[in-house]
Amino acid sequence: MADSVIVNSVKPCIILVNPQLGENIGTAARAMANFGLGDMRIVDPRDGWPNIRAREAASGADWVIEGASVHDGLAAATGDLHHIYATTARPRDMVKPVMSPEEAAADMTARMAGGQSCGIAFGRERWGLNNDEIALCDTMVMAPVDPEFASLNIAQAVLLVSYEWYKLHARSLGMSSGEAPPVTASGLIMPDTRPANKDELAGFFKHLEGELDTAGFFKSRTNRPTMIRNLRNMFHRASLTEQEVRTLRGVISSLVRHHLRPKPNRDKG
Amino acid sequence: MADSVIVNSVKPCIILVNPQLGENIGTAARAMANFGLGDMRIVDPRDGWPNIRAREAASGADWVIEGASVHDGLAAATGDLHHIYATTARPRDMVKPVMSPEEAAADMTARMAGGQSCGIAFGRERWGLNNDEIALCDTMVMAPVDPEFASLNIAQAVLLVSYEWYKLHARSLGMSSGEAPPVTASGLIMPDTRPANKDELAGFFKHLEGELDTAGFFKSRTNRPTMIRNLRNMFHRASLTEQEVRTLRGVISSLVRHHLRPKPNRDKG
Repeated sequence: MADSVIVNSVKPCIILVNPQLGENIGTAARAMANFGLGDMRIVDPRDGWPNIRAREAASGADWVIEGASVHDGLAAATGDLHHIYATTARPRDMVKPVMSPEEAAADMTARMAGGQSCGIAFGRERWGLNNDEIALCDTMVMAPVDPEFASLNIAQAVLLVSYEWYKLHARSLGMSSGEAPPVTASGLIMPDTRPANKDELAGFFKHLEGELDTAGFFKSRTNRPTMIRNLRNMFHRASLTEQEVRTLRGVISSLVRHHLRPKPNRDKG
Repeated sequence: MADSVIVNSVKPCIILVNPQLGENIGTAARAMANFGLGDMRIVDPRDGWPNIRAREAASGADWVIEGASVHDGLAAATGDLHHIYATTARPRDMVKPVMSPEEAAADMTARMAGGQSCGIAFGRERWGLNNDEIALCDTMVMAPVDPEFASLNIAQAVLLVSYEWYKLHARSLGMSSGEAPPVTASGLIMPDTRPANKDELAGFFKHLEGELDTAGFFKSRTNRPTMIRNLRNMFHRASLTEQEVRTLRGVISSLVRHHLRPKPNRDKG
């Protein structure tokens, strides 16, 4: 883990969610190798792993295939990351920033210069990422494509994002000797702390949602998934630091605990 | 041919020279369609034409495959063009301008604006264009790739060049042909709602901080201003919508109210 943090802090990882065809995994690996990327994470590959067709389609990018990790669910694949980009073919009904591959490359470059680990998630061949998966992500990425024929092959989507990253990376390597100034993508100054990683964020969500269940916040079971998604989206957008996540957990604990104090005449909330 | 001159004057054509695999022709057609290109010219396809595997791999970009023209030699395929770009994987020993796909896109856009017809030639899968073919071209195009793994699949090379052209083209068109989603200044898509105004945000802060005071959250009076500032900063960064502010107020009310319910054995927060 210590090693991978170093790697991730300078290069983004590519996360393939529930890929159906080994060929596409292989072609995506090849595209990654073309642009200097090596950390592939595969979530629930339909045909299991390893996959001989993936190996063949990688056309020699064997180290990407061999080094790929396999995970059970997107959350498990991304716990160490600070910022996840979700590629989507169409706008979703969610309040999240949307960037082009070019903008995302600039954004992740700035974040990684500030020490954050970033990953880009790609969905299934036919229907992409589902809404729960997108809710786990921070930023949506949409490639500019002809609306008349918008379906990008998954490996081609990997190619475009990797290409934009590499263009910027190659350019910045030409200008500086690797020591970029510590500025976060959103221009935040983060003194004495660091961005929360996804595990910490997941712990916070579990805490909040558990208390809301106890409190009967979700009036109907059918609305619950949507409301949870909306709540997660809000807090994702805030780009919380690890310290802030702890503060928010303190807020929750404080709000739910105060009835234990002997204050029968307190003001009503 | 008269028709295609008009088309060519606004969009470049893609020329595949001696392609070996039908799959690659099809995938290249799909990539062209993704970025609004439709004029494919095929020089000496190894397996003849039409090619069922090309058709299958095009994944619905049938009009590109059906409209493709087949030619005997590169010169025959390009007689009507004014400027030909030759994609190469490595520098050749020739005195010719070399551009990146991005630069080539800008160059051809300018030429086409001046009435020239342009095309981009892609070579065979294994060894690219030969020197005689490159000599027929005006400009070389090399994509920035990792020198450790530089071999781009032909369809992926088509994708990158088409993508760069489309990016520039879409931008110069204004990109908004009425289809773009409503995006705020901060790049957020906001469906069915609007950003919270400052009054709404202030009401939320007052609500939250009042409850935290009641709960004894601020352990010391001296820290209180700093903690409040930190909390406000977090929620400011989330760029909350009006609907989200209402949701968060509901969360607070729910968390502080649930002790009124008869649940003595609930889990501790």
